[in-house]
Amino acid sequence: LVKREIVRIVTPGTLTDEALLDPRASNHLAAVVEVKGKLGLAWVELSTARFTLTSTHRLEIQDEIARLAPAELLIAETAVDAPWVRALRAAAPGMTITPRPSWDFLADQARQLLCEQFRVSTLSGFGVNDDAIEIQAAGALLAYLRETQKSALLHLRRLHVHRREEVLGLDETTRRGLELTRTLREGKRDGSLLHAIDLTVTPMGARLLAEWLNAPLTNLDALRRRHDAVGDLVEDAALREELRRGLATIQDLERLAGRMGTGRATPRDLVGLARSLAALPTLKARLTARRSAALRQLEAQLDLCPEIRQAIDETMVDDPPLALKEGGLIRDGFHPLLDELRDIASGGKSWIARFQAEQIRRTGIPSLKVGFNKVFGYYIEVTHQHQSKVPPDFIRKQTVKNAERYITAELKEYEDRVLRAEDQARELEYELFIQLRDRVAAEAPRLVQVGEALAQLDVLAALAELAARRGYRRPELVSEPILKIVAGRHPVLDILMPEGRFIPNDLDLGGDSGTILLLTGPNMAGKSTYIRQAAVLCILAQMGSFLPVKSATIGLVDRIFARVGASDELGRGQSTFMVEMTETANILHNATARSLVILDEIGRGTSTFDGVSLAWAIAEYLHDVIGCRALFATHYHELVDLETVKPGLRNANVSVLEQNGEIVFLHRIVPGGADQSYGIHVARLAGVPNPVLERAKAILAQLEAQHRRMGESAAHSH
Amino acid sequence: LVKREIVRIVTPGTLTDEALLDPRASNHLAAVVEVKGKLGLAWVELSTARFTLTSTHRLEIQDEIARLAPAELLIAETAVDAPWVRALRAAAPGMTITPRPSWDFLADQARQLLCEQFRVSTLSGFGVNDDAIEIQAAGALLAYLRETQKSALLHLRRLHVHRREEVLGLDETTRRGLELTRTLREGKRDGSLLHAIDLTVTPMGARLLAEWLNAPLTNLDALRRRHDAVGDLVEDAALREELRRGLATIQDLERLAGRMGTGRATPRDLVGLARSLAALPTLKARLTARRSAALRQLEAQLDLCPEIRQAIDETMVDDPPLALKEGGLIRDGFHPLLDELRDIASGGKSWIARFQAEQIRRTGIPSLKVGFNKVFGYYIEVTHQHQSKVPPDFIRKQTVKNAERYITAELKEYEDRVLRAEDQARELEYELFIQLRDRVAAEAPRLVQVGEALAQLDVLAALAELAARRGYRRPELVSEPILKIVAGRHPVLDILMPEGRFIPNDLDLGGDSGTILLLTGPNMAGKSTYIRQAAVLCILAQMGSFLPVKSATIGLVDRIFARVGASDELGRGQSTFMVEMTETANILHNATARSLVILDEIGRGTSTFDGVSLAWAIAEYLHDVIGCRALFATHYHELVDLETVKPGLRNANVSVLEQNGEIVFLHRIVPGGADQSYGIHVARLAGVPNPVLERAKAILAQLEAQHRRMGESAAHSH
Repeated sequence: LVKREIVRIVTPGTLTDEALLDPRASNHLAAVVEVKGKLGLAWVELSTARFTLTSTHRLEIQDEIARLAPAELLIAETAVDAPWVRALRAAAPGMTITPRPSWDFLADQARQLLCEQFRVSTLSGFGVNDDAIEIQAAGALLAYLRETQKSALLHLRRLHVHRREEVLGLDETTRRGLELTRTLREGKRDGSLLHAIDLTVTPMGARLLAEWLNAPLTNLDALRRRHDAVGDLVEDAALREELRRGLATIQDLERLAGRMGTGRATPRDLVGLARSLAALPTLKARLTARRSAALRQLEAQLDLCPEIRQAIDETMVDDPPLALKEGGLIRDGFHPLLDELRDIASGGKSWIARFQAEQIRRTGIPSLKVGFNKVFGYYIEVTHQHQSKVPPDFIRKQTVKNAERYITAELKEYEDRVLRAEDQARELEYELFIQLRDRVAAEAPRLVQVGEALAQLDVLAALAELAARRGYRRPELVSEPILKIVAGRHPVLDILMPEGRFIPNDLDLGGDSGTILLLTGPNMAGKSTYIRQAAVLCILAQMGSFLPVKSATIGLVDRIFARVGASDELGRGQSTFMVEMTETANILHNATARSLVILDEIGRGTSTFDGVSLAWAIAEYLHDVIGCRALFATHYHELVDLETVKPGLRNANVSVLEQNGEIVFLHRIVPGGADQSYGIHVARLAGVPNPVLERAKAILAQLEAQHRRMGESAAHSH
Repeated sequence: LVKREIVRIVTPGTLTDEALLDPRASNHLAAVVEVKGKLGLAWVELSTARFTLTSTHRLEIQDEIARLAPAELLIAETAVDAPWVRALRAAAPGMTITPRPSWDFLADQARQLLCEQFRVSTLSGFGVNDDAIEIQAAGALLAYLRETQKSALLHLRRLHVHRREEVLGLDETTRRGLELTRTLREGKRDGSLLHAIDLTVTPMGARLLAEWLNAPLTNLDALRRRHDAVGDLVEDAALREELRRGLATIQDLERLAGRMGTGRATPRDLVGLARSLAALPTLKARLTARRSAALRQLEAQLDLCPEIRQAIDETMVDDPPLALKEGGLIRDGFHPLLDELRDIASGGKSWIARFQAEQIRRTGIPSLKVGFNKVFGYYIEVTHQHQSKVPPDFIRKQTVKNAERYITAELKEYEDRVLRAEDQARELEYELFIQLRDRVAAEAPRLVQVGEALAQLDVLAALAELAARRGYRRPELVSEPILKIVAGRHPVLDILMPEGRFIPNDLDLGGDSGTILLLTGPNMAGKSTYIRQAAVLCILAQMGSFLPVKSATIGLVDRIFARVGASDELGRGQSTFMVEMTETANILHNATARSLVILDEIGRGTSTFDGVSLAWAIAEYLHDVIGCRALFATHYHELVDLETVKPGLRNANVSVLEQNGEIVFLHRIVPGGADQSYGIHVARLAGVPNPVLERAKAILAQLEAQHRRMGESAAHSH
């Protein structure tokens, strides 16, 4: 009987097999613990060894979980029915929730387990207090990993602390509305911002790019480092080209290291690792003495791991088989005993030839042959015709058509020796392979670090490549709340639309230009695209990318709130307007003077009068109380009057052209309120009877006159 | 060689095969001819022999073609590129357009061909002038049928004249918006009005019901006849039940007659016809002495065709095979020679048994057998063992394993007789079948008429069944332009929604109640459903159905114009508002004082001010100039002021309830403008900060005050 042991337990959050994972997406296992309304959160990407923790509040945990979209979430079994758990279920619909024993989450136990794993006596070195609530989540996570992985988790050697204040805040509605990583309608990567900007050449880079996009920075210095590096790589096309060519030959070092660390690397993984390491010296050499600090640091971080590479190269054959125990793994000349055993095993052929020749001579049977089959091993075959010449020491074993098969003592003795040598060689090969693997596994943390450096290099080079290909420019980042864009394009439409068809637009917010732009005008003219574009450009700038603009000055944003798109969706039933108002309330409560707010057709879901009233009051509140930068698209023309009374508010509209009896939207944003007669123009072109048109014009004139008065009185009623 | 002739040419419009046709839908072949801006239109349902013609104008031909949705359209080859042909292509996207020689459309030739087919010297007996333009289209149609069908078209014996003024006008936008036969989004029958009301039990009935729904009547007497008949059948449940049970056993007589007329009826078609005819006497008996004139007339129209039935019953076996020429069709005892031939052919078995026994006795070979195969016919088989006993008159033909096969002169002679008798019987059967089929085909026009009567009976009984099942009531039809509904339900939602969940509503238009209802209030509250319901109920009433109401008085409508739904569709791009205005212009140009106009959120596609102005001017025009009944749903609250100045206009709104912190739409329509504070209520429930709410309320109060003044001045500016 074969002894079977449980080697590991596979769960959605602990997959490391290449075949089961999307190389371009992270696979997170997370744990959440709640103590007095505060939440501790820890997550790990087991296949890449990234172990992160943070604390948060009830209101924000949903956005965090939606951002991470973990495959599996651990919670204490006592919390299964808690309201915050229900909310998390809704935030990440595909997520498996795994209840765990409550004691796994106990503070003391968790700290002790973490200290043991990371070989420290206090966790404060990682930047987290020993009594922080997130320690409890991290401890439960590690306990689960140990239980399921049944391995030393050699690659887990560092804790990362996620500081939420260092990250640009993006709630789930905003992420969805701006289509950062998935499209709004079909939920596909294709057509998302991520898809449009992803020119990475390694899976490590692709994952890191998604991470950067999901968590743009708010720190000016960190962003300047990224922009400097991208700038260096934009300018030096030859360098960029070489780096990308080199990176493209490198395997997924992070996930290779993950398989090393959990004891599941294959012979091909090791050879792939050596080949990937072989590409490093050239990369490192090309990175020396760059202007950008980030590139110089990456150069320093690029540990060539020469002894690992050398050990693999010396030990392993160039193209090993998939199987571990069938031999053929270890290079000739690496181990004297292995060479000797192989000699014996492969020496077979010449010995057999000699033996066969000798038997032919002795028996005088010219057709005598020595063969091998799996049942009888080596045998001598003699045709019926020559039966009489068979010597007495031949032992008959098998009759086949036209022939008999024999063995002799000498032949069987030789066979034993050969077979034993083969077995011994296989066993020795396996042993040598495991030795090598263990040795490399011990270096897993170094490999993880190299993988991280390569991922960064790939992302920076990809952003530079994007900038070079599509003519992106470096934004000027400042602390002041301004947002100035000249000839900006929407990065997704810029790619999707035929060359030159997308109309670039300017934007000028902050300082003397006012902080709120009120955009009026007909549907379908590009209002939504324009206001989304502003948000998307801020996100790109704060993730470290250059921008599709002629020039841009971006005052760093702490949070972006976008309420776009959803109001156009049908079939969501009676609660549409309720959803709209709930999201608006969230914005009004949480936006700060450093935030950017994007509102598309607020109030559309209700009737005109109260829609106008709410939109007006909301715009005023943003202007008077919050004072943030905001873009406000509406077809409530009434709101244009706000400009006369609110110094920080500016009107703009989308210019419309009547051409050969057709209405053409120029998709160009110009100052001022929209032309009121647009609708009546179209009605005339459509053949609406003249008396109706004349009457409509008269009413319009009255409306405008009335509203001028109303604007004034509303302004002065404060 | 088999002589092959072209028997017929199959084209999309001339299908008659059951397998290729949807039994519940008509398959139209149409022809259009244009002379000086006037259009002649003819169409035929070949499988049911319905041949119809009409004349129309350029502006209306599209609606006609959209209504008919022909599978194939014939036009003169010289007209292929004419603009009106392009418009028709757009009206019926799946339609095949077949260009035909221009001379087919010549007036003299067409008239002559039609007179010949219908065996008349002038077509005026059918109610059409001999020089009417539609004659030219009909002639081209008939020429095409003769060319493709290569048969006498025995069942085509009548021309129907479609009088457009006798039919309620429904343009394509209205049909689509009201989802008469297909849903708006998915284009499916399921979920359409037709699907909701179709309780017919025969394919003939299903097709006629669709026809009635597509062409409701405007003639009061004709409608009263239908309603009387439905009323009779509602009251007498036992009668209705029996009729429906009887009808359910009847095959598609119209299409059977079509296959008879084009010489393609199968043996099973004939037997099916006889069985269907067998159900008629009971139906007819149940219809005698009914109160309703329509039922009495149908009773009279129900020609029992006893001699046809008798001829088939006498001639055909009960369950004939599909094939025509393999025999087994004709009943034993029908024809003496056939009986005799069958005797010989089937006598075979006993003769063979006798022959075999005799040969065994003669040869003394107990295992001797007589067998039959297709190559050698009858043979005698003797095993090798008994070869020596084979007599000299056995002629060897074939060697098989263990045996030899022989023939004798006697055996072959018998074989000839048997085979000849079988052939002769088959031939005779085919001949008798064709005689019968031709005889029945000559009666095809009678069968068509019976089929039409049965279709009507089925539709009337189905409408009665619908009324009984769902509690429909008979509407009072009047000539005055009023529309009064008490507790009306939407027939589709009435079925789709759980019992009692759909909220019935009243409507009162015309007379002192005003002609225009202006419906304000939030989206999602049922405004669209309510206004569609009014149109749908008029259509039901004017097709002859009872209505899902407590009571209803319907002043007959000449045309219904509905502009609903489309503005909610996204993705139609820049021209949405242009489309909206084009459709509105069409309404304003074509509606009469007897029309019903349904407008949903007109002006929504543009900005508020010009949207309001246009909506206002359009409402005024409907009120002042056209004076038709109209339902006008809008969330431009500005329009409520119209009530104060337009005597024929009334405000209504959908009542909204705040309950346990949720907004509940009661789906109940009440008089008066919508409550302006609905949106602000919802905003408060959603947690919008208090200062914003207070400010919104203040602005709302101002808006209302301003608009009161504006309403007055707009009213007096005329």
